[in-house]
Amino acid sequence: MDRIPVLTLADVLLVSIQVDLEDQLALRLQDDLAERIVATGARGVIIDITALDIVDSFVGRTLATIASVSKVLDAETIVVGMRPAVAITLVELGLQLPGVRTALNVELALGMLAAARFAESHAGDLADAAPASS
Amino acid sequence: MDRIPVLTLADVLLVSIQVDLEDQLALRLQDDLAERIVATGARGVIIDITALDIVDSFVGRTLATIASVSKVLDAETIVVGMRPAVAITLVELGLQLPGVRTALNVELALGMLAAARFAESHAGDLADAAPASS
Repeated sequence: MDRIPVLTLADVLLVSIQVDLEDQLALRLQDDLAERIVATGARGVIIDITALDIVDSFVGRTLATIASVSKVLDAETIVVGMRPAVAITLVELGLQLPGVRTALNVELALGMLAAARFAESHAGDLADAAPASS
Repeated sequence: MDRIPVLTLADVLLVSIQVDLEDQLALRLQDDLAERIVATGARGVIIDITALDIVDSFVGRTLATIASVSKVLDAETIVVGMRPAVAITLVELGLQLPGVRTALNVELALGMLAAARFAESHAGDLADAAPASS
């Protein structure tokens, strides 16, 4: 496989990682996601890792890089479907996923993204209201 | 990989096929989908084949079987992300995907499923109305 498909769901991009992420594939995924965020104006990226038996430091770094790039492009990254054994191994190895939020499944992640946008739009309302009251 | 992840989006199941479907994997996907339809009460199954370079007769048969089983369980199957070359090859080889609807992407497929449910609920309204007028 030369690239991992990126699916679009309204303003959310969805990626299901099912194969071992080697260098080229990981780089391509980063590029594809960045391009698609800009092209579609996506506000969220959901990465499903249900199929991954192991998340090593390279995969962890890839996920963190995707999250950082997305953040710069104003999109939040949520990793879903992490297996219990993967979570335990991550902690035992002391690996961290900086900038990456997690959710149990795609639906909960969509809910988190919707909640974040709702809070954001309300913060905008408050900011708009502030000058009027001064 | 031992199985292809099945993602849940409200009452729709989403599968992204990214690896070659050998026998065991195809059988397991059929089983998983049937079980998940029953467990979640899903009304639609969306299968993304963006990553597939080729849809041979085995893959075609697998998709048709999934569609038939889903139909019996009252869920509609829509295949999305078919590459132009794949479509051309399917036609040239005379392969058909009986019972399988197609859409360009996930969003259009979700729209088709929503429209089908809307029509269904209206049909119910008409059926309810008929006895009253007799």
